[in-house]
This record gives sequence, C-alpha cells and structure tokens, in this order.
Amino acid sequence: MTVRVGVIGVGMIGQDHIRRLTQVIAGAQVVAVTDVDSARAEAVARDLPAARVHASGQEVTDDDHVDAVVVTSWGATHEEYVLGAIAAGKPVFCEKPLATASAACSRIMDAEVAGGQRLVQVGFMRRYDATYRALKAVTHDGSIGAPLLVHCAHRNPSVPDFYTADMSINDTAIHEIDLARWLLEEEITAVSVRTPRRNSRAAEGFNDPMMIYLETESDVLVDVEVSVNAAYGYDIRGEVVGETGTVSLADGSGVVVRRDGAYVGRVPADWRERFVRAYDVELQEWVNSVAAGGCTGPSSWDGYAATAVAEACTQALRSGERTPVSLREQPDFYAKTH
Amino acid sequence: MTVRVGVIGVGMIGQDHIRRLTQVIAGAQVVAVTDVDSARAEAVARDLPAARVHASGQEVTDDDHVDAVVVTSWGATHEEYVLGAIAAGKPVFCEKPLATASAACSRIMDAEVAGGQRLVQVGFMRRYDATYRALKAVTHDGSIGAPLLVHCAHRNPSVPDFYTADMSINDTAIHEIDLARWLLEEEITAVSVRTPRRNSRAAEGFNDPMMIYLETESDVLVDVEVSVNAAYGYDIRGEVVGETGTVSLADGSGVVVRRDGAYVGRVPADWRERFVRAYDVELQEWVNSVAAGGCTGPSSWDGYAATAVAEACTQALRSGERTPVSLREQPDFYAKTH
Amino acid sequence: MTVRVGVIGVGMIGQDHIRRLTQVIAGAQVVAVTDVDSARAEAVARDLPAARVHASGQEVTDDDHVDAVVVTSWGATHEEYVLGAIAAGKPVFCEKPLATASAACSRIMDAEVAGGQRLVQVGFMRRYDATYRALKAVTHDGSIGAPLLVHCAHRNPSVPDFYTADMSINDTAIHEIDLARWLLEEEITAVSVRTPRRNSRAAEGFNDPMMIYLETESDVLVDVEVSVNAAYGYDIRGEVVGETGTVSLADGSGVVVRRDGAYVGRVPADWRERFVRAYDVELQEWVNSVAAGGCTGPSSWDGYAATAVAEACTQALRSGERTPVSLREQPDFYAKTH
Amino acid sequence: MTVRVGVIGVGMIGQDHIRRLTQVIAGAQVVAVTDVDSARAEAVARDLPAARVHASGQEVTDDDHVDAVVVTSWGATHEEYVLGAIAAGKPVFCEKPLATASAACSRIMDAEVAGGQRLVQVGFMRRYDATYRALKAVTHDGSIGAPLLVHCAHRNPSVPDFYTADMSINDTAIHEIDLARWLLEEEITAVSVRTPRRNSRAAEGFNDPMMIYLETESDVLVDVEVSVNAAYGYDIRGEVVGETGTVSLADGSGVVVRRDGAYVGRVPADWRERFVRAYDVELQEWVNSVAAGGCTGPSSWDGYAATAVAEACTQALRSGERTPVSLREQPDFYAKTH
Repeated sequence: MTVRVGVIGVGMIGQDHIRRLTQVIAGAQVVAVTDVDSARAEAVARDLPAARVHASGQEVTDDDHVDAVVVTSWGATHEEYVLGAIAAGKPVFCEKPLATASAACSRIMDAEVAGGQRLVQVGFMRRYDATYRALKAVTHDGSIGAPLLVHCAHRNPSVPDFYTADMSINDTAIHEIDLARWLLEEEITAVSVRTPRRNSRAAEGFNDPMMIYLETESDVLVDVEVSVNAAYGYDIRGEVVGETGTVSLADGSGVVVRRDGAYVGRVPADWRERFVRAYDVELQEWVNSVAAGGCTGPSSWDGYAATAVAEACTQALRSGERTPVSLREQPDFYAKTH
Repeated sequence: MTVRVGVIGVGMIGQDHIRRLTQVIAGAQVVAVTDVDSARAEAVARDLPAARVHASGQEVTDDDHVDAVVVTSWGATHEEYVLGAIAAGKPVFCEKPLATASAACSRIMDAEVAGGQRLVQVGFMRRYDATYRALKAVTHDGSIGAPLLVHCAHRNPSVPDFYTADMSINDTAIHEIDLARWLLEEEITAVSVRTPRRNSRAAEGFNDPMMIYLETESDVLVDVEVSVNAAYGYDIRGEVVGETGTVSLADGSGVVVRRDGAYVGRVPADWRERFVRAYDVELQEWVNSVAAGGCTGPSSWDGYAATAVAEACTQALRSGERTPVSLREQPDFYAKTH
Repeated sequence: MTVRVGVIGVGMIGQDHIRRLTQVIAGAQVVAVTDVDSARAEAVARDLPAARVHASGQEVTDDDHVDAVVVTSWGATHEEYVLGAIAAGKPVFCEKPLATASAACSRIMDAEVAGGQRLVQVGFMRRYDATYRALKAVTHDGSIGAPLLVHCAHRNPSVPDFYTADMSINDTAIHEIDLARWLLEEEITAVSVRTPRRNSRAAEGFNDPMMIYLETESDVLVDVEVSVNAAYGYDIRGEVVGETGTVSLADGSGVVVRRDGAYVGRVPADWRERFVRAYDVELQEWVNSVAAGGCTGPSSWDGYAATAVAEACTQALRSGERTPVSLREQPDFYAKTH
Repeated sequence: MTVRVGVIGVGMIGQDHIRRLTQVIAGAQVVAVTDVDSARAEAVARDLPAARVHASGQEVTDDDHVDAVVVTSWGATHEEYVLGAIAAGKPVFCEKPLATASAACSRIMDAEVAGGQRLVQVGFMRRYDATYRALKAVTHDGSIGAPLLVHCAHRNPSVPDFYTADMSINDTAIHEIDLARWLLEEEITAVSVRTPRRNSRAAEGFNDPMMIYLETESDVLVDVEVSVNAAYGYDIRGEVVGETGTVSLADGSGVVVRRDGAYVGRVPADWRERFVRAYDVELQEWVNSVAAGGCTGPSSWDGYAATAVAEACTQALRSGERTPVSLREQPDFYAKTH
C-alpha cells in the first residue's frame, strides 16, 4: 500500500520532506500541498504529478485522497493543523515543536485521547539516528551499569542574526531535552541554566554559550552545553556515565587525512550533513507505521513534555534559579511512549 | 515515473534487492520474478502484489510490463540473462560478476556496443559507499598529492567450508580490484600474489591469508591483504599514500564504550552491516538513472576489466610469478566510465 | 652539581620520590631521610649508601649536607616542615596539599615572603604532564579563540573504604582546581557543587559522583565530574571550549587491538600508569631549578589558592549554594606564578 | 654505583647521548670524550666537569677511569672501537649500525665470544619504545593468535640531498628489519623489494617510496613501506595480523583540536619527537645493566643479522629478485638474544 500524504507548509523543511517522501524512501506519494504562500505551493506542486494544491490546511486534512498529513508550517500554526488532522481521524507527522506552548500541546493530547487512537508523531528525528540508537542500546544493555550522569554538547557553527537565547532553548536544546527523556526513559523534574562568559561572536546580550542542567526522576543529572556560535562545525556530543562504564558518541569522519603534520577528520558542517539519514529513517518509519495502521514515534506526550521542560528552562534563564518542571498527569493512553 | 523491475533469481541476494526496491528506496516496483526454483519464485511473489511469476529469465526480459531487469541468479547464468536484456533493449543491473570469464564479459560488451546504448550496470556496490567516495574525493582534490601506493585489507571473519583460494580472488578481492581501478582511474597492468603463513583456521591447502599486488598504468602499487578467516570481524581497510599525505578509511563505530579497563568500538560483524547503505544507494542511483533514461554506474567494461585482472591473479597464484594483465582495446563507447 | 636531598616522610609516596631521585632522574642524591616510624626510615636508608637517618624533620632541614628538602609526610605536618625548610633557607618540594587549611598556607607564604626568596614548590604534578602542557599551549596559541568553558572528568576506578566526599574534593578534585587556575591563568572566584544520583558502588551517604563548578575571574565556567567509583579505569578527561574551537585530552592507548568484534584501546589502571612521567619530569625540573639556584614550579600561592577553593567547595557541598571564594591579596612576590 | 662513561665521537648523536647521560637519566657520569675533530671534543668537554679529552678512541677504551664506552662515531669506524672496547673487557654501547658490513659484525662477534662475556649492545632504540613494547606484548599474550602478517610504514617527511635508496635500506628500513626479528622472535630468511611510482619530491633515480618484503622462518610476511619524502610528518605505523585479531600502533597525539571543520591530531615532526623517550629508556637500561654487571639489550648477533638482511635487501633492490638471507650459525653464546 502506498501512503498518500498531504503536506501543510512547503517552506524549506516542507520541501525537504517532500523530496524525502518522493525520491528517497519507499511507500509514499505526495497527493496534496498547501502553503500560506499559494504561489510557492503551486511551484512545489509542479514537480509532483500526483499533487493538488489546496487553499488551506483544513482542505488538506479533509481531502479524501489524503491518507496522512505532514505539518511543516510555521510553529504557531501547528496546533490548528494537528487538531484538524485529529478531527479528520488521520495520522499526522508534525515537525517540532508540536506547539509553541505546553498548554497548546495539552489541548492536542486531549483531542487525541478523546478520539481514542494515537495519530500524532512529533519530529524529534534524533531518536532515529543510528549513533543515538546505539547510545541508548548500550545504556540499557548492562554494559555500563545504571546511568548517573549525561554530558551533552550541541554546537552550531553559527546562527542567523535574529537568534536569541530563548531560541537556543526552544529550537536547539529542545533536541537534547527530548533525547534525555527518551534515552533515560524518565521524565525531567527540574532544570537550571548557567550563562558563562559570552562568546564574542554572539550578539551583545545573547547568552551564548549556555549550560543547561536537567534533573530526572531518578536524579540523573544531564548537562547540556549549547553553543550556537561555535564556528568550527556542527558538533553533537554525548556521553552517558554509568556506574561501571560510559558510552559516548564517536567522531564520525568516514576518512582520516594525514597532511601538514596532522591527522585530520571531518566535523559535519551543519545539521543536514550530520542527521540526513536520521530524517530519512524517521519518515520511512512513520510511513511504515501509517501503512500498518499504527503510530510508533515520539507522541503528543513527548511533544508536550519537551515543551514544558523548555518553558522551565526559559524561566530558569530569567531567574537564575533551579526551576521545577511540573507536568500534568500522563494519560494512560501514552503509557508506552518510550 | 515508477520503474517497473523484473528480477531474475530470487535467492538470498535477489530477495534482498527486492526488499530494497520495494521497502527502502523510492521510485521502483517489482513486477516480475523468476527463479530456477519455481516454488521459491512463487513464495517470493506472494508478498509482491504487483509481481507475476515467469518460467524463465527470457520471459522476464521479454515482459512488456518490465522496464528494467535485475540479474541476481547464479554467476554462470549471468551472461545469458544480460544478453537477453540487451537484446530486449532494457537496462539491466547485474550482480557481480558480470560473467565468470573475461571472454564472456567481452561478448556482453560486443552486444551492448552493437545495440548502441549503455544498458548494463555491474553490482560493484563499494563505489556507492560514503567512506570510499570520501576516500576518492580526497585522493583527487590535491590534499595528498599524486597517489603512489594503496594499502588495502579485506578481512572476513569466516567463510563456508567450500571456500577456496580462487574464491578469495574472484569473490572477495574482486571488490578491491574494481575499487583500485575506480579510485585511481587507471587500469591494472600486472599482478602478483604471495601466500604467507596459513591461518590454522583455514582448511589445509587453502592459502589464507593471501597478499595480492596490483600495478597500475602509472606504476601505483596496490597491496591487498585478503583474509577470510580473520575471526574478529568484517574489517575493510584502505589507505591511499600520496606524495604529500595519505587518506584512510576511519574506524566507523558510532559509539565508544568505556568499560573493563578499555575503550571499545565496534567492528562490523559482516558485509551487510558494513555496506548496507552502499547497496541502498547503488539501487537508488540505478533506479534514478533508469528513470532518467541513462546508465551511470560500473559498466560492462568495468565488469570485464575486473574479471580479467582476477584471472591474472588466479594465474599468478598458480605460477608464483608476476603476471601481466592484457585487456582488449577499450571501445570508445565506454570512454567515460569513471 | 649534584643536589643533595633530604626526605621527610618515607611512606609510599616518599619512597617513590626517593626511587625517582636516585634511579630515574639526573643530578640528585638522597643524603638524609626521616620518618615518624624510625624503623621504616632505617629500612629505606639501607638501600641509600649516602643517606643518614635523622630523628626528626628539623634535623633534616638543619643538616648541612642537605641542599634541598622533600616533604612527603602526613598532610597535617606539612606546615611545620615547610616552615622549617624556609627557616633554614633551603628549597623545599612539598607534596600536595601545601597545608590542610588555607590559613596555614597563608602562614607559609608570610614566612617565605619575609625570607625574601622563593623556596617552596608544591607537588601539583599534572602541570608537568605532556598532554596537559599541550592542552595549555593550544589554549593560548590562538587555535581555539578565548576560552569560555572547560569540561573535566576525574574518574578513579575505586577508593579505599575510608574515602569521603570531602576527600573527593580535597584529594581528588584538588588537581582540577589547580589545573583550572594554571590552564586559564586566572583565579577562581566562586564555586558550586551538585550531587546527582549516587553510584551504588559508593558507600551510603557518600556523594559520588559529584559535579563541581568553578567560575573564574573572566567568567569561564569549569565543570568537573569527580567519580571515584568509576570501576572501568582511571580516566582523566578535559576539554577547553574556546570561541572558535576546542582542545581535548586524547585517548592515550599506545596500541589498538582488534578482536572479538571490536577495536580496543587501553584506559590506564591507576594514576601511576597515567602520570608516572609527569612525576619524573616534575622532580627533574625541581632538581634542575634548585641546581640553578631558583624555584620555578607551583608556588605557595598556588598551594594556598587551591586550598582556599577546595574549602569553598566543601562549604558549597554542605550548603548546596553557590559559594564565593575569597582570597587574600596576592603578594607581589608571587606575581609571575603562572 | 655511578657508571663512568667514555664517549667516542661527539657529533650530533654523541652530544645527544651525553646530554641524556648527564641531564636525563640516573646513575651515569661522562668521564672521557674523543672525536676526530679535537676542537669539537674540547668544546663538548667544557660543559662536563668530570671529563677528560682523549686523542683517540683507543685512549678512551684504555682509560682506567672509564667503566663503559659509548660509540657514536662515523659508522665506518664502529668496528675498530667496538673491538677496542672488547679487548679492554669493557661494556660498549654502539649506535647502529654495529658495523657497515655483516663480515665486520661477524668479526666483532668472534672477538666477543672469544672474550667469554657479552659486552656489546647495539643502538636499536625502538625496542625501548613503550608502544612497540605493547605491540610485542599483545603479539605474544594470545590476544590475536599466531602472527601471520606484519604491515609497517616508515615515513620521513624529508631527507638530505645526499640520501640514496641504499640509505633507505641501511639507515631507515634497518629499524623495521630489527623490529621484525625482535617482535616475532624469528630470523628473516628471504627478502624482496618493489619500487612503485617515484615520489616527484625525490631526486631523479631515487626509488622512493620503496616496498620491502621480509619473510621469516615460520613464513610470516612482513611488508615495510619506506617513504623518506612523505612531507606530512614522521609517521611510524605497524600492525601485526594474527590468526584471530590484530594489534596496531595507535595515533599518539596527546590532544585533539577541533577547528575549521575538522578534528586534528598531531603527527610527530621527526624521529626525535617520536622516539625521544625510547632513547632515554635505552640508555637508562644500558647503564643499569652495566652497573649490575650484565648486558641485556640488542646484541652483536642482532647487529649482525640486521646488517645481513639489509645487505640482502640492497641486492634485491639491484636484481629485482627475491633474495635469500644466509646467516652464519648463531653462536650458543647469543642463544637468549630475544
């Protein structure tokens, strides 16, 4: 069975997912698109023989030819479109964030629970990265004992001028927030933020780098260095420290060059280079799960919890204080999230 | 456009390619299968809604619903089926070897040239491996100067009981033979073989490990360690030594574990683990080229040249002598092979 | 000129330094020893043809045949013996800690300043480790831009039963405290301590691992993981994050073994294996400086500052609060400490 | 006991050994020097309070104040001075080569055997390198099974203009020749040499790089890449391939720098940087053995065997043929060489 997909929002990430669905993975077809910029939607559709252009997200979710929906519009509109897909009873893949506030995520959960079936997958693509999967496998196979600490670094070479410390939390650290929950299979209960010496490459008043500390239910402490002006490359690092050993992400250079007095391996230039395969696998597994009639990836609960933790981090950044995270009670519906 | 593929031979590798065409990559559909064991063909077809079962390879190549052919039958039958596809004017992907003798490969070339268009791609999948592609890119971008030496090791943990030294050349070293030609963009002009101390895990009389030496047109010397009883893992190593630097395949473990007094990275267990992505990319690029009406991968000439070099290696193993490789003149038709 | 050394305290570390002075490095001779256990002193002297046994530390410092003194007695006695050496106008190498409280260190400084010449070197041997020296060199040669963050881990496989969280600070983290000051060439201005989930291999109530945070004058943030029940090995890690790059201690295994599906490098078993050369270089440079009539290593000020920071850490561990470090004004005498 | 050393030949390497004996290691004193250039001998002696200047090597070996002799003169004079030390019954450390021809080495052995005690140590310092010692330990501890192949590379960034292919064998590859014997504890029985494409940085007619193949008694095949115009650094590589695993020299960079899209480790600039510690340990162990009245390092037999193998390599380079190595019968006297 080929899954017929409608795409809401065809900007950069939307177009990239369309390319993936039509040229990279198996089992999907793009049959409908829409965008706030209708000319852009028309242009994108020109290369998609099977696709109609709709005037709104609602038309996409309502289209009988659409089996499943991909939401890649502007974050502020996610809630509306995801709710629309739920109303239509259709599986929906929503790029992160699920919604821009935990309250909105909560409303999505309510709708999904009311509908009686899991329909929502949130785009936390790192869970599909082979190295993170290996990290998680080792963490739980007894090789290193119970986890005690996790050390992470998320380094971007640079960011656009409009980037802010809040975005370092909501758009950058959000990945590590979700990862920590997924990796450790625990919720985060409190957070703190420290702002060391500012990188002079960052704008005045922009706290970069930032150190974020996440505490989990079993008191594992996760520290996350967020550096979005790291200059040298896109470098994602992670180490889980267990009671008897550790496991770390390795350097991933395919080849090593020896020249000019050095051996040299490549650091990825950006997130595309580092995580291109994770996106492919994410979409393939989503399409597979839709074709099989289920929903297996990061859930609305995961989207909600990550957003709630990010909100606490933003508050901690403002206050300088350790800030507890309070989550609503988890609906049984999401019991097997991990 | 979806490429409709007919598959001749649905043993292990044939089934794997069918899985790839239907569940992993975009743009292909399997519409016909055949196998010397018709019951096996029926069983495989059961999971392929669109596929008919044919009684012979010829029926597959003649089937009007078949746009392109995959030949994954027993090596001795490759010539017949590839010639059949050429006769039908259809693109054909043939697993290595193109044919079991260089004379047979030569006949295929003659047919293809006579037909006036490139139709044949040979399954040298390493050319599609990201690390080898990086190795080649560095070799030619000036980073290390002109290549002088290439050191390779091809280590298999073990082989079936029926494996022989001839198979170490024809089925194992064949990959390095093709790689050397592709990497250096030169033909191999002479070969030698040395048989050091036998691994006691190999059968009596089986020369394992073996050292194969390939000389190229510009006198680059390529040494290939072939060890098919290496026990510890499937380890593929390669280093190009240039005039001012070198480039090597790096260890590819995604994570590093620290425990028991050591840091530990994974060596792949077998070729599937090591090269699964190369096979995926290979088939995707083949499907793409077919859809685009062209043919871009390893050609009949490449299949012929690799087989001719392997024949010289087998002779060198017997004689203990340095053995020149004599190739027929390359048809202009294949001029831009690399 | 051969430097004639008197050693006060010939327990494990004292004997090790005697071995170093007599069998490993050039230019020294051990001419006097003493120990609280006089039988032990006699036994040690038996292998030292040139050495007399003295009844007290004072006799050693007063001995006219003694050019310079090594203090390797119990920490609580360091102040007395170092003051004795200063009184005798003799260079003294004192194992860490200089004294068990910053007030005592302060008294030593006063005496040394009053004497008018630098005589005291404190045994912070990591400053003599080749990899730390390379780390510092890169930090200051412009390769990575101005330092912003330092990530450290100090992992011991195990500790004796009597070990406590205070000792994790005073005996273990003290090395990173000194290193941070030396590496960054700045004083530490405030500290915090976090106690994540306890390693079940640690005694009840023993906060292990511990995370220590050091802030410097220019707001560099140094985080130090102290794990003294790390089981897998003695693993010392460090990374300086600068504005445009980073520099890290590399894995130091001399060889890599491939077997059983893995590539495997060695993690040192203990501090002796990891830092044996640093101790040798430390003593050689001390002997050289004594022979040259100077004093070049970590000073009384360094011993004082490290102790003061450790005191603040202990207080922060108790209170859970960020704790400022207040140092007395640095005597000009020590101006060129770094 | 302090060993009183006389040094014959105080050029660059002689002066370096004097520095080592007087400023780096324990237990030695330089009491006599001589040099073909007497002004140079005088200049060197000026910094050595205890040293007399002699007019000839013979005066050094005959000097009653000299306990042991270091021969660091021009290679062609080694035989004479080593024989002189043997005649005087004094331990002698002779830099490689023991003599410039195997026949001369043989005469030295005859003299030493006639004297009835081992007195000669040859300066094959790699046996004292910690990484090579680890390589050998793993090779023999069962981790990798019986050795089958050894892959070596000896890369020099550059050589003086007067360097020749013969020197690549006698002065460069000689280290790997000795290592192979020491590592495998077997003699070399035959050699071959191949000359691939010439590095354009080498002089016209100079075969660089060169591949040397050594066969041992048990048919282990050792391949040695010798590249003396490698440009990028001094890179010494080695891998022993056993029946079930391998062991390799690891990259030895103390720190890894991340910058400009890469992670970067240092390759040594020259042999001093790479092997400085091996020289120190070599001299210390020699001094210790002299003090203990014995002789433990590479023997005259080792010097003879390495020279004989190098002679065969030179012949193989000329002839292009596999060349057997014929050694005289090993005197029982050297039975426990390894």
